[in-house]
Amino acid sequence: MFRPEIKVVDCTIRDGGLTNDSHFTVETVRAVYQAICASGVDYVELGYRNSKEMFDPAQFGPWRFCDEDMLRKVTDGIDPRSTKVAVMQDAHKAVAEDVLPCDESVVDMIRVATYVKDVDKAIHLARNATDKGYECTINIMAISVEGGPFLHEALQQFEEETDALAIYVVDSFGALYSEEIQFLVETYKKYIKTKEVGVHAHNNQQLAFANTIEGIIREANFVDGTLFGLGRGAGNCPLELLLGFLKNPKFNIVPILDVISNVILPLRKDIEWGYHIPYVLTGILNQHPLAAMKWMTSDKKNDLVDFYNELTEDAE
Amino acid sequence: MFRPEIKVVDCTIRDGGLTNDSHFTVETVRAVYQAICASGVDYVELGYRNSKEMFDPAQFGPWRFCDEDMLRKVTDGIDPRSTKVAVMQDAHKAVAEDVLPCDESVVDMIRVATYVKDVDKAIHLARNATDKGYECTINIMAISVEGGPFLHEALQQFEEETDALAIYVVDSFGALYSEEIQFLVETYKKYIKTKEVGVHAHNNQQLAFANTIEGIIREANFVDGTLFGLGRGAGNCPLELLLGFLKNPKFNIVPILDVISNVILPLRKDIEWGYHIPYVLTGILNQHPLAAMKWMTSDKKNDLVDFYNELTEDAE
Repeated sequence: MFRPEIKVVDCTIRDGGLTNDSHFTVETVRAVYQAICASGVDYVELGYRNSKEMFDPAQFGPWRFCDEDMLRKVTDGIDPRSTKVAVMQDAHKAVAEDVLPCDESVVDMIRVATYVKDVDKAIHLARNATDKGYECTINIMAISVEGGPFLHEALQQFEEETDALAIYVVDSFGALYSEEIQFLVETYKKYIKTKEVGVHAHNNQQLAFANTIEGIIREANFVDGTLFGLGRGAGNCPLELLLGFLKNPKFNIVPILDVISNVILPLRKDIEWGYHIPYVLTGILNQHPLAAMKWMTSDKKNDLVDFYNELTEDAE
Repeated sequence: MFRPEIKVVDCTIRDGGLTNDSHFTVETVRAVYQAICASGVDYVELGYRNSKEMFDPAQFGPWRFCDEDMLRKVTDGIDPRSTKVAVMQDAHKAVAEDVLPCDESVVDMIRVATYVKDVDKAIHLARNATDKGYECTINIMAISVEGGPFLHEALQQFEEETDALAIYVVDSFGALYSEEIQFLVETYKKYIKTKEVGVHAHNNQQLAFANTIEGIIREANFVDGTLFGLGRGAGNCPLELLLGFLKNPKFNIVPILDVISNVILPLRKDIEWGYHIPYVLTGILNQHPLAAMKWMTSDKKNDLVDFYNELTEDAE
């Protein structure tokens, strides 16, 4: 029934950190870590390992940088069972020098997020990670506006020039329909022969879970979710839905429900994510959610026709 | 690009009426009617035509009965353009005598909702409707717990013994995954040769929109949505997402956005619908959402592990 090759990555703290400049308390991150370890999910991504030259530590919280001592405050004393720790490096906002040798680090996997144009930076960081003993994935962002020859070249390069475990389809704009996921996973698989394909979906059009399932049907074996869908804008594929779908008996949904009750739902006092029409509209129009995020914090938040007019005027 | 055969039904007031015993104000229903007519959506379902013997008019609002004079208060003076009015009759809670001849009625289409076991009642009401000059559909509820020989017999009977325009797959429990929608639509099509297949999805697992698309891919031509997903429990396929997906230029999303801003979002003060874990859990477990709806109104609403334990204990 189930496919043991499928690896699930929880990225609640990392993607959720885009809603609050990565200002989660240690207690919150520790509770998430503990729940994910207890649930049997394969990886837990605790934030970014981005550069303090490019993000001001006075503005951004600790999970934008994931210093090793902060990570230890989260993980110390908790049995990880089979769960590994991941952090993300943005290809254009991170440096190789911030990465210790793996055997001195809490981190097991480094995920390199990149645009197609930054392929060479991504390869540099990916090779740095695997050279230092980490597992690695490469996550190609904004894929709904890619697809030309440079994507094909990038896939070829990632296949030949890195030891990444997986190359991801990342629907940053929440714009893709299932047929497009099918097309993209199949396009990736023309080039990616020695690695897995991954899917990271956003929920602007309530398709993050469905598109993740579609990826699984098309043989993607790395899939991402977050607790209660917490993440930028409309959020991500809810991890609890993904575990409900996957039949692997190693997963346990109870710790997931518990941490949602006690830690994630209370965050809604300060952070708003989920289904909102401004995110729907940038998704439908295949645009970056930034305009929607700004609109959502304005006093015109619910003036939907005005926002639609603004978006479609810009696009002309 | 687009398939002109696809008919879209807005059922905001009808399905939304399951959240508030059909107590919408005339102003609300009129605003929804006006917006749907302006948007080019094919049908607008304004409530139930159920029996006052079976629902107490002292408890339930006017849209549980849709008396003709109430419907006229909604529609008078508004140009319907191409939009037709539908009402629903529950096979086991409605009577043929409550239906006037079509030419004396505001209503254009009667949708008969039925369980498989009530097939004969459904056929009686469907024939009553078409005999009196109405269009008609038959909506088979709780389809995620059907599939045995009686479903096959019911489909054969609906095909042979009624003049319904469409026979619907209704995922009342929000339990179905895309592969199951595919299987069900294909099963229906073995019997339903002279009518269309329809899809009405619930959003417990955030799959209502995706499953509606899956139905469309499998040649279902009647599809349902509601404004901002308003509907029982987790709600329905959001109409605005459906219009964003369909490429038929006859549809206009602007009046939809306008009525969501001004009429639907303000309803959230009194009605709670959308993504909540209790609905997720009944969906995953393929159970009626009633237990989740009760839990959501209790003071244990966010005690998710307790609810999960209660549900899984019952199922043993």
